[in-house]
Amino acid sequence: MLILMKSNAGADQLEAVAARVRELGLTPHPLQSSSRTVVGVTGEYNGLDPAVFSALAGVSKVMRLSAPFKLAAREFHVDDTVVDVSGVKIGAGQKLCIMAGPCSFESEAQVMAIAHAVKDAGAGIMRGGLFKPRTSPFTFQGLRDDGFKLMQAVRSETGLRFVTEAVDERSLALVEEHADMIQIGARNMQNFALLKKAGQAKKPVLLKRGMSATLDEWLTAADYILSEGNSQVVLCERGIRTFANHTRNTLDLSVVPAVKELSHLPVIVDPSHGTGMRNYVPPMALAAVAAGADGIMVEVHNDPEQAKSDGAQSLFIEQFTEMARRIPEVARAVGRDF
Amino acid sequence: MLILMKSNAGADQLEAVAARVRELGLTPHPLQSSSRTVVGVTGEYNGLDPAVFSALAGVSKVMRLSAPFKLAAREFHVDDTVVDVSGVKIGAGQKLCIMAGPCSFESEAQVMAIAHAVKDAGAGIMRGGLFKPRTSPFTFQGLRDDGFKLMQAVRSETGLRFVTEAVDERSLALVEEHADMIQIGARNMQNFALLKKAGQAKKPVLLKRGMSATLDEWLTAADYILSEGNSQVVLCERGIRTFANHTRNTLDLSVVPAVKELSHLPVIVDPSHGTGMRNYVPPMALAAVAAGADGIMVEVHNDPEQAKSDGAQSLFIEQFTEMARRIPEVARAVGRDF
Amino acid sequence: MLILMKSNAGADQLEAVAARVRELGLTPHPLQSSSRTVVGVTGEYNGLDPAVFSALAGVSKVMRLSAPFKLAAREFHVDDTVVDVSGVKIGAGQKLCIMAGPCSFESEAQVMAIAHAVKDAGAGIMRGGLFKPRTSPFTFQGLRDDGFKLMQAVRSETGLRFVTEAVDERSLALVEEHADMIQIGARNMQNFALLKKAGQAKKPVLLKRGMSATLDEWLTAADYILSEGNSQVVLCERGIRTFANHTRNTLDLSVVPAVKELSHLPVIVDPSHGTGMRNYVPPMALAAVAAGADGIMVEVHNDPEQAKSDGAQSLFIEQFTEMARRIPEVARAVGRDF
Amino acid sequence: MLILMKSNAGADQLEAVAARVRELGLTPHPLQSSSRTVVGVTGEYNGLDPAVFSALAGVSKVMRLSAPFKLAAREFHVDDTVVDVSGVKIGAGQKLCIMAGPCSFESEAQVMAIAHAVKDAGAGIMRGGLFKPRTSPFTFQGLRDDGFKLMQAVRSETGLRFVTEAVDERSLALVEEHADMIQIGARNMQNFALLKKAGQAKKPVLLKRGMSATLDEWLTAADYILSEGNSQVVLCERGIRTFANHTRNTLDLSVVPAVKELSHLPVIVDPSHGTGMRNYVPPMALAAVAAGADGIMVEVHNDPEQAKSDGAQSLFIEQFTEMARRIPEVARAVGRDF
Repeated sequence: MLILMKSNAGADQLEAVAARVRELGLTPHPLQSSSRTVVGVTGEYNGLDPAVFSALAGVSKVMRLSAPFKLAAREFHVDDTVVDVSGVKIGAGQKLCIMAGPCSFESEAQVMAIAHAVKDAGAGIMRGGLFKPRTSPFTFQGLRDDGFKLMQAVRSETGLRFVTEAVDERSLALVEEHADMIQIGARNMQNFALLKKAGQAKKPVLLKRGMSATLDEWLTAADYILSEGNSQVVLCERGIRTFANHTRNTLDLSVVPAVKELSHLPVIVDPSHGTGMRNYVPPMALAAVAAGADGIMVEVHNDPEQAKSDGAQSLFIEQFTEMARRIPEVARAVGRDF
Repeated sequence: MLILMKSNAGADQLEAVAARVRELGLTPHPLQSSSRTVVGVTGEYNGLDPAVFSALAGVSKVMRLSAPFKLAAREFHVDDTVVDVSGVKIGAGQKLCIMAGPCSFESEAQVMAIAHAVKDAGAGIMRGGLFKPRTSPFTFQGLRDDGFKLMQAVRSETGLRFVTEAVDERSLALVEEHADMIQIGARNMQNFALLKKAGQAKKPVLLKRGMSATLDEWLTAADYILSEGNSQVVLCERGIRTFANHTRNTLDLSVVPAVKELSHLPVIVDPSHGTGMRNYVPPMALAAVAAGADGIMVEVHNDPEQAKSDGAQSLFIEQFTEMARRIPEVARAVGRDF
Repeated sequence: MLILMKSNAGADQLEAVAARVRELGLTPHPLQSSSRTVVGVTGEYNGLDPAVFSALAGVSKVMRLSAPFKLAAREFHVDDTVVDVSGVKIGAGQKLCIMAGPCSFESEAQVMAIAHAVKDAGAGIMRGGLFKPRTSPFTFQGLRDDGFKLMQAVRSETGLRFVTEAVDERSLALVEEHADMIQIGARNMQNFALLKKAGQAKKPVLLKRGMSATLDEWLTAADYILSEGNSQVVLCERGIRTFANHTRNTLDLSVVPAVKELSHLPVIVDPSHGTGMRNYVPPMALAAVAAGADGIMVEVHNDPEQAKSDGAQSLFIEQFTEMARRIPEVARAVGRDF
Repeated sequence: MLILMKSNAGADQLEAVAARVRELGLTPHPLQSSSRTVVGVTGEYNGLDPAVFSALAGVSKVMRLSAPFKLAAREFHVDDTVVDVSGVKIGAGQKLCIMAGPCSFESEAQVMAIAHAVKDAGAGIMRGGLFKPRTSPFTFQGLRDDGFKLMQAVRSETGLRFVTEAVDERSLALVEEHADMIQIGARNMQNFALLKKAGQAKKPVLLKRGMSATLDEWLTAADYILSEGNSQVVLCERGIRTFANHTRNTLDLSVVPAVKELSHLPVIVDPSHGTGMRNYVPPMALAAVAAGADGIMVEVHNDPEQAKSDGAQSLFIEQFTEMARRIPEVARAVGRDF
């Protein structure tokens, strides 16, 4: 930790800072530059809030030397984590994982038609919302509990694994029981109570990036899950909120190599929510693969024009099939075995 | 609702859109401009997801004519709502409300010292975190249940009302039972499960704006609470996330007149989280009052340099007292009785 | 300057960094913390690009201890600068300065009607665009050279000073010759060629903040002007670009106390461009005064409904007069003599 | 154009709006929905500022049905534009174009070493700054005029074409005379005076996207160039400014398919400025190709650790060569002939 003093800080303020450092069992190392003084702090300060020093008189700011996340950090866990979703493996050195399905489960006919199509095109995991965190209380909220039977039917007919979102303690318990993977949505990325419950679950977790989350915050949210004992976490980039308005969100693909550098966790990309526009999904899915993602998650619908939610960003089945055909080629072009 | 067709949309696509509109019991009104066609839609379409149309072939985009929120809208509820926090009233025509206190409750000595000071300076409601939604699982998480006794002691000694944050179903029940007002934090603004529970509570709710929430999304989150029967909601601006890095967040004071125009709900401002820097809090609190806010919420600490969290943004008691002295003067200067 | 090594940096990489520091005539001070090494750098490194070190192997990042701006910094120029606009003074300790006028000069009748009205209400400086940097080449580009005669007529009839925008070398020469203050617009804040010309001019400069400029970048742009010898620079906040869509830009009032802390230059606020909506202008202007701004700049029109540009954000004359009446009261409430 | 009335707008206000529409020679088409009225406007209104209506009483907002840009729009120019840079062609159906070189020209040895290396790896155009728009006036500003001789030497030895940035009228004339392509940098994207000069030049223009430019604004900036008669414009995405801090900017690859949909102009991507970090450049360059870009522009240096600017984002020659080897494979995987 480094404590940067203000340029007009006095010697007494510097001494008070050093005293506070020592009081906490740490060692201060003042370094005088031409314009101001910086105090390096050494010792064991895990869990110490930097604000402890930033509140002191004469302090300009406090800089951490280490990342705020620990368990998700590659620094302390060099080998890539491989996450096992009921036999489908996600991570470095594994086949690229395709997750696909409708935004929401609507009916058996819909679900089965999509399931067979995405299975045939190469998907390993089906997605489909049962509990929908809708922005407005007046719109369709999902099939909820009734959807789990459909999920079982899909699984036994196609062998696809299943991932769906949990939005509270109750739905998390149901998803843990019935699905293969628990999704934590972007709006709940800092719902720490829910993260802890996900950390106690016995199923892998797909943790979407919050709309305004920095990479540090996202990996620290993963720490909430990991610190409860669940090591099976896959990260999912799904677009951040910016001023740009040609897409619904701005898909931040640069986060893929950044996650690979800073963390051992697998990372996939969701270009459907990331763009909100069907025609931009295939190019952005292929770009995600080229950037090094471990998988993609896309919305597909057998009849997008009749979908109850997110139809505009759902691929037609033929679009999905065409895109899925190109994915292994792009993967190989960047040196990854599909 | 308006459905904007693409410039190259064909007559058959236009007809398919019109047919879908009629199928939903609504009436299409096509209007041909020089460059493209727009279809006005009339009829009763409350709760209809605009995506129903945006997924159709040839559609460029769908625009709502009405706001997505209903119950929070001034359009349907012209008179200003006044929220009653155990006798302290917040809203248009009321005295400006000052909420003040530490980031977190730490000890009885701390809490009592601050309570007396803020009471003397004119605060009506005390704030103080018991359940802290901390970004990292490794930092101080609050006194939790033990804090409620302190709260009662404060209340009986000073008469201050009390607001504190609930982070899940369990803490919400405790806060509802013991405090005067339930705070929903920025990170949970779209935790819809929690919003519904708050809507079922018998205490008023302080709903903070999410870090990346548009005004529409914020008011729609308020609708989640209102639609469960709780009409006592106060909005709180606390800074949004932008590229600007001279403050921790960017305090968006323009949202104050915007809320006043679009909603009947009271709105207050939290410049402590909004700036993250102690010295910027008083000018921004006074600016909030000048912009027309119904109150302010600030962090104050009897010894910020020893605070367990957020010390850098906590006011010294003398700073708070000096600021509180100016607030009525600014309120009067903009035509509001303090 | 601090050079933060990567956690896995080797001893040889550390040595190479230290060697490069010494090669540049500076002194390295390595400090070993538990997780990584940081190298403090002391000596005379004005103008040294931090990238010189960030490119070295094993370096994680380089942090400046001092701000990138020098001449605009309060650190090296403690006393507040007062800018003199042909006798109208702007800055700490001066009367709050009101600049008002239409977006663009359109006709003599328009200009004179507005000039008399704003003069009567208390404005000291008139604004009015002659050279308009319009987003589209197909919209009204301003009266251009013809406007200067109108400006002279206004000046002799009312005594108002005049500020208008320069967009290139040629218009800058004209504005310098005929107006009292040269405005550099937000879109040209990093047009360094234009900034240098403004620095060579003999008239004060109003430097608007770029739509996506950090405070550091803005003050560094001021350095471009100051370093050419022109010490008369006033900063103007006019809203930044964010995701928020209830206003055209997000007015960042927190930059006012931040400028006051970091710089000696005066700072004013333009709530017209900052919000883009007429009804939000008066509350935000009053908020700017409460936050400590040295002045405000607003758009006023005698007939906004017929304005050739920016009518929606132009105040009616009565709105302006009512707002101007409250400004001294707010100024006094925050301890400033109007 | 659509004029959306406020929900509480009166019949007289609606009539006044309709009257204003007719006064401008256009036809109003009022459409009454349940909650409010919208007025469609038909007729010839090219160049009409929507603000003409948004300033009227009772108007909530005005929506354009057509894009603000015309000449850059695919709507009016269906076929893809191919830009010819002294024989190197850029655009749909052409070989993917690689532009590479140092941030700045520093010396003959540096320039020649890099030129031969990038030529051998497959680049067609060399980049290299002569006039540097540096954020601070105290840092290296480029070789300026002296660099043109080096450029000629490169061209005759290697056959590489040359692109470099112009920052004002004078440098633009020099770049037009000596280089093969004129670059307009991100900071000058809305320097309309410079855009017009570029539009009068006889060489193709590379127009970088401004840091906070929407797609509409970028294409409208292209209109400034096109409207002066220069049809040879290539767009270049180089990252936008967001809250995300793991990269210097956020590379917005979704703009590639969006440009392809809305415009006929070629679009390339600069992942060096887009990320600011050397190790993220190759994955993002490959992702850009997968997303459908017509080319990439990257910074390469023979000795990044000694570079005078931007060393941290410059590729080592071996990194560049390895990346360039993969580009044709990714291009083919997404159906494009390299």
